[in-house]
Amino acid sequence: MKKYDKVVKNAVGRLVPTEVNGVAQHPFMGIGKYKPVGRKYAPQIASCADYPADGNKTIPTLKDALIKSGLRDGMVISTHHHFRNGDLIAIQIFEIAKELGIKDLVWVPSASFECQSVLTEYLADGTIHHIEGSMNGSLGRFTSEGKMKGLGILRSHGGRYQAIQDGEVVIDIAVIAAPTADAFGNATGDRGPAACGLLGFALADSQYANKVVVVTDNLVPFPCIPWQIQGNYVDYVVVVDKVGIPEKIVSGTTEVTKSPDRLLLAEWTAQFCDEAGIIKDGFSFQAGAGGTALSIGIYFAEILKERGMKSRWARGGSNKYLVKMLEDGLLDYILDGQTFDLEGVRSMRENEGHVNTSPFTSYNYHGKGNFSSMVDVVILGATEVDVNFNANVVTHSDGYLLHGIGGWQNCLHAKCTIIPVPLFRDRIPVILDEVTTICGPGELIDVIVTERGIAINPKRTDLIEKMKNSKLPIRTIQELKEEAERICGKAAKPKLSDEIVAVVKWVDGTIIDSIRKVEK
Amino acid sequence: MKKYDKVVKNAVGRLVPTEVNGVAQHPFMGIGKYKPVGRKYAPQIASCADYPADGNKTIPTLKDALIKSGLRDGMVISTHHHFRNGDLIAIQIFEIAKELGIKDLVWVPSASFECQSVLTEYLADGTIHHIEGSMNGSLGRFTSEGKMKGLGILRSHGGRYQAIQDGEVVIDIAVIAAPTADAFGNATGDRGPAACGLLGFALADSQYANKVVVVTDNLVPFPCIPWQIQGNYVDYVVVVDKVGIPEKIVSGTTEVTKSPDRLLLAEWTAQFCDEAGIIKDGFSFQAGAGGTALSIGIYFAEILKERGMKSRWARGGSNKYLVKMLEDGLLDYILDGQTFDLEGVRSMRENEGHVNTSPFTSYNYHGKGNFSSMVDVVILGATEVDVNFNANVVTHSDGYLLHGIGGWQNCLHAKCTIIPVPLFRDRIPVILDEVTTICGPGELIDVIVTERGIAINPKRTDLIEKMKNSKLPIRTIQELKEEAERICGKAAKPKLSDEIVAVVKWVDGTIIDSIRKVEK
Repeated sequence: MKKYDKVVKNAVGRLVPTEVNGVAQHPFMGIGKYKPVGRKYAPQIASCADYPADGNKTIPTLKDALIKSGLRDGMVISTHHHFRNGDLIAIQIFEIAKELGIKDLVWVPSASFECQSVLTEYLADGTIHHIEGSMNGSLGRFTSEGKMKGLGILRSHGGRYQAIQDGEVVIDIAVIAAPTADAFGNATGDRGPAACGLLGFALADSQYANKVVVVTDNLVPFPCIPWQIQGNYVDYVVVVDKVGIPEKIVSGTTEVTKSPDRLLLAEWTAQFCDEAGIIKDGFSFQAGAGGTALSIGIYFAEILKERGMKSRWARGGSNKYLVKMLEDGLLDYILDGQTFDLEGVRSMRENEGHVNTSPFTSYNYHGKGNFSSMVDVVILGATEVDVNFNANVVTHSDGYLLHGIGGWQNCLHAKCTIIPVPLFRDRIPVILDEVTTICGPGELIDVIVTERGIAINPKRTDLIEKMKNSKLPIRTIQELKEEAERICGKAAKPKLSDEIVAVVKWVDGTIIDSIRKVEK
Repeated sequence: MKKYDKVVKNAVGRLVPTEVNGVAQHPFMGIGKYKPVGRKYAPQIASCADYPADGNKTIPTLKDALIKSGLRDGMVISTHHHFRNGDLIAIQIFEIAKELGIKDLVWVPSASFECQSVLTEYLADGTIHHIEGSMNGSLGRFTSEGKMKGLGILRSHGGRYQAIQDGEVVIDIAVIAAPTADAFGNATGDRGPAACGLLGFALADSQYANKVVVVTDNLVPFPCIPWQIQGNYVDYVVVVDKVGIPEKIVSGTTEVTKSPDRLLLAEWTAQFCDEAGIIKDGFSFQAGAGGTALSIGIYFAEILKERGMKSRWARGGSNKYLVKMLEDGLLDYILDGQTFDLEGVRSMRENEGHVNTSPFTSYNYHGKGNFSSMVDVVILGATEVDVNFNANVVTHSDGYLLHGIGGWQNCLHAKCTIIPVPLFRDRIPVILDEVTTICGPGELIDVIVTERGIAINPKRTDLIEKMKNSKLPIRTIQELKEEAERICGKAAKPKLSDEIVAVVKWVDGTIIDSIRKVEK
């Protein structure tokens, strides 16, 4: 099987393969242009006659569960990333597979973390054929160096749900690590020694995988309430000593920034939202977990409090700042896709207004609508932005694939998308003529905020009009790029070969860009 | 299209058609014997590009929604019955269809009520071809008289989920009346002027129907929390003045019985459970909403309280007695499929331990297990029982089809199934040589409690052993039947023609019995 076949130019001018790992692909055609025609993936019909009447699906070990699930060469195995850098289960799956001499597995994590870097060994020895998910850090570097047997496929959180729902990825065995579960397989993330908040990233896996294994270190008597994952989808339950390392579950930047430049970005972003009339009673927002984004949330809270207003809902990534807004009555609902700290976990357990969501509700583009397009304003990061407002979140200026997409592409559908970025990092300009990898097309990106000025996408004449008397330094993106180049010089192009090592899917399953091997 | 074709004898000796309304059927083969081989029904893939980005799916009228949904001859239309006898929407659908000159619709309600008796007119004039669901009261009488154009199909609540999931029933348009909803289509039953508790009977419809219309009289700003029905499945939202008549939503017997005979049945049933060792710390039970069943629940509560024990979970039908147990700390969880009174509605809204379930979690036989087989003891009613412990819940001794199956068949899978029935009703014996219609095979029915004695199914040697020193009047079913006949004389057989007017499905989609036309 060839890694990929024949490339064509897609709607954003990128060359993308028409076949990946033996499967035919559609090139990106523009926002909303590709219309799916088929039917959702249809899992096999089960029968209660084949499951224990007393509801006890426990089985002694993960190895037993994998063998009973029919683990064999070439299977597609999925895991979720709610334990983040404290995950203990994904690696065990491949250790067991290797021990059993299984080859060419496809790993479909909802995201990968540095704690899983040892999996490069399993990629190297052929246990894992390729990854469809995120290839972060060491796994990304391995991919960028062209060492992965198959082609990597990067998808957003919503794209992952879409791909599983649509049958583009057919999961043979889903392994769902759960902080609390009952013997029937009902599971929750909001309690237990390794509580991680929710398990929404495993929802599609539970619904569509052929075999579903729940692994927990906290087995409770039926019923496990809430049942974020429903036991009616589950085949086996495995009890282990430790399902995750709690102190590593909470990772990423969870403190507000102290950098004066970052604080300026946050302040200007909040001020921009205010002057553009976005901040009003009942508005909705989504901000990520980085230090800048957290600071913006705090500015929002201050503005709301001062004016006696409240936000109706925030999409999360929840954290202690968002929880405080909820508990201070500045926010009616947190629609949470992933808890970033323990306050988020606590709040999800305790507050009725802190609601467990999933990529199905929030991000799946092949649904009858989703939440992302209803958000009034979303604040996102990027590794690179270009003069056409295209942005990159997966590769660095040196061309290395070092990040997953997360919910980033999905969030771009908000009513206003703002990307606050420094004008340069380590003296390398962030605003370029052309991004290394297009993850999001410029037509969905409305505002770029830098410490030297703010650029509004020319398509957003409404925002330009609203800001025409602003004291904020509104500039063109071209002006910002030139300023960066004046200071740092023109950015060197990364040294890339023609060989494609991974592709980036758009939210509709089409390919928006290719990632190329880095020349040493 | 013939109503039905060629009959064969099934595993309980009943003649059942091999084809119904043009669709091939499987005869009942025995408990757990029919193994499904196909895949679940796969709905068409949608795209957010076809739905409003701002999430506003409202459309002025139900008529507009039905037209936009493509309403045409022969379509399958579904409704739920959470409003019970206070439903206002089902009739409107067929009024609109008639006005538009649409013919031969198939109506798939999760249950029907007397408030819908006017639909006999739409059956008579050809607007509705036949009903797949329950044919109660007037609709049942109409069916029994052979007047329905197609053949009626009766399914249990779990069987309905199974049939929709498996694609045996493909719903073109699901109309989901909701006490509260947002413009995106998220909906809940636990609040609003016409609060009915939950909307679980509409879950399958939302997941699998081609078009989904939510009708509400209480539109709230996004997000409607909880979202018992998820807007991501919904096409249109219609706001009406009144979605249901609150005072009629709560119907059925919701007071404990005052009849001395019924109280005796309740007392003996509770005592039986106690002596058989079923009532213990952490046990689970399900009792219906009838006066006898309510009284049994009260006995259970008394026993638990006296001994300082608690039940882990009860399956409901919730009511004020069950809620009291929960709030008195005698019960950890109510896993509720349908609220029977306003206390149930309040409790579902207020108590974390009062959990909204669905036929998917509780009853679907074509899942990876379900809750029904985990219940320690279930108390059920019956119109007739026979000496082989077979029972009937749909037809009366005169042969008329007057009831739906509800969750009755599903509940039979409990660890112990007890049916308390009077030995005779209106001087007609309830225990017969052979029931008019087999809804549940005797092998799943363990105990019959009557006011003249208790019969244990001979297959349950464990229960017979446990009760051998009991002071309760343990008798054989034959003895009970003979006693009834001594008092009332032998029951007259209903006058039935050979013509089949409806079939009763088993939980696995096979046909367990046929219902025949009543000869006047």
